[in-house]
Amino acid sequence: MKILITNDDGIHSEGLITLAQEVSEIAEVTVIAPDRERSATGHAITMHKPLRVEKVKIPNCKASGWMVNGTPSDCIKLGLEALLDITPDLVLSGINRGANLGTDIIYSGTVSAAIEAALSGVPSMALSIAGNNNAYFKNAAIYAKKLCLQISDYVFPKDSLLNVNIPLVNADDIKGVRITHLGTMRYENSFDRRMDPRGRIYYWLAGELIENISDNDSDVWAIKNNYISVTPILFDLTKYDLIDTIKKWNLKV
Amino acid sequence: MKILITNDDGIHSEGLITLAQEVSEIAEVTVIAPDRERSATGHAITMHKPLRVEKVKIPNCKASGWMVNGTPSDCIKLGLEALLDITPDLVLSGINRGANLGTDIIYSGTVSAAIEAALSGVPSMALSIAGNNNAYFKNAAIYAKKLCLQISDYVFPKDSLLNVNIPLVNADDIKGVRITHLGTMRYENSFDRRMDPRGRIYYWLAGELIENISDNDSDVWAIKNNYISVTPILFDLTKYDLIDTIKKWNLKV
Repeated sequence: MKILITNDDGIHSEGLITLAQEVSEIAEVTVIAPDRERSATGHAITMHKPLRVEKVKIPNCKASGWMVNGTPSDCIKLGLEALLDITPDLVLSGINRGANLGTDIIYSGTVSAAIEAALSGVPSMALSIAGNNNAYFKNAAIYAKKLCLQISDYVFPKDSLLNVNIPLVNADDIKGVRITHLGTMRYENSFDRRMDPRGRIYYWLAGELIENISDNDSDVWAIKNNYISVTPILFDLTKYDLIDTIKKWNLKV
Repeated sequence: MKILITNDDGIHSEGLITLAQEVSEIAEVTVIAPDRERSATGHAITMHKPLRVEKVKIPNCKASGWMVNGTPSDCIKLGLEALLDITPDLVLSGINRGANLGTDIIYSGTVSAAIEAALSGVPSMALSIAGNNNAYFKNAAIYAKKLCLQISDYVFPKDSLLNVNIPLVNADDIKGVRITHLGTMRYENSFDRRMDPRGRIYYWLAGELIENISDNDSDVWAIKNNYISVTPILFDLTKYDLIDTIKKWNLKV
């Protein structure tokens, strides 16, 4: 099995290195990842400047590595279309420090890289742990390795990818795996309005999360209750069930 | 009617200014837009630095304007949650110079701004013209104004927005309006591999588009055939029809 790994925290991040180390035990791994953190880049791609690529050694790991001065989506595009001789069997994006849940995945560089792979017809998974603590990457990477083996028994669905979130608990405390839909994430008081030392106003994105955790088929509920969430994700953003409704509006030039 | 306008080409772009001028005839318009071009930013948001806001005069237009040192999504978030006293009835994003069609909309700052509005429950439309020629913005803006009036007769669907593309032809040559789904856009030879003056390799995103124009219900077909395309877009990326399939995989920790 050939696996391509990327992320949005950058090639030197613990989550990516741990994932590459574990998955190298079962697959031939290539890492192509941003040279620095690219969180909340959404599905940005670099059109107006050249991309540079540099070989990088992944510590304690036989995976080959390249770092790119671009976004996660750039890394996947460049990997699939310019750097790799053979299309990988699977793309993994992560392991991200912090959950990628609900409607928030639209901001996620981690998920976008997996979408980019899926757009090119390569099976892919985005992987995140629900918090900021390096101690849990090892367990998450071991689970990711198991998941790679488990899904290889099935025909990976076309026009889709999987978004996987792992709770921030010890392996023994994980209650199981839930197949979920994306939950609702809303924020209150999103911006802090502040004054700089020179008396000028600026705004800083802040906000308190209002999660809907009553919906127990959602990824938000699963993570709150110490389950791993696996959500199938689409990339054809057409809302098909509205086409007939809007046809009835009879819009004119 | 209160309308908020943004874009990803920047607040000084012809497409935005023309749109603001036209729509001001039927609504109270506020423009909140990036201070410079932010194309292909996808759904990026600015988390790690402060956002600055500055009042700007929109030429020949009574609309009030603010420019922001952020992305299109930042502009909408900041507008809805910090700058505007009253939630607008409609958000318009554009008019973008260049089409936003098919699976490519995932890269689009224009569409992402409209998604950001929809996430906050505000009806929204992304507007683009299919090419790079200032001469066609006026017609497109007049059409956008008509569209705002036409849709105000209907209940705007929740959990959705409209992606509108306008062909680059004179008003008389527009054949009509088609309600479409997103077509397929694939690229060949996506990267140019080049050598810089110091002998180092770099890559530049290029690529030849392979459009599927045989699908005459798609937005790609509509634009090629001089129709305006209107596509309903979702932002819940769950692929619901796969949940039962993946449940049968019986994934384990």
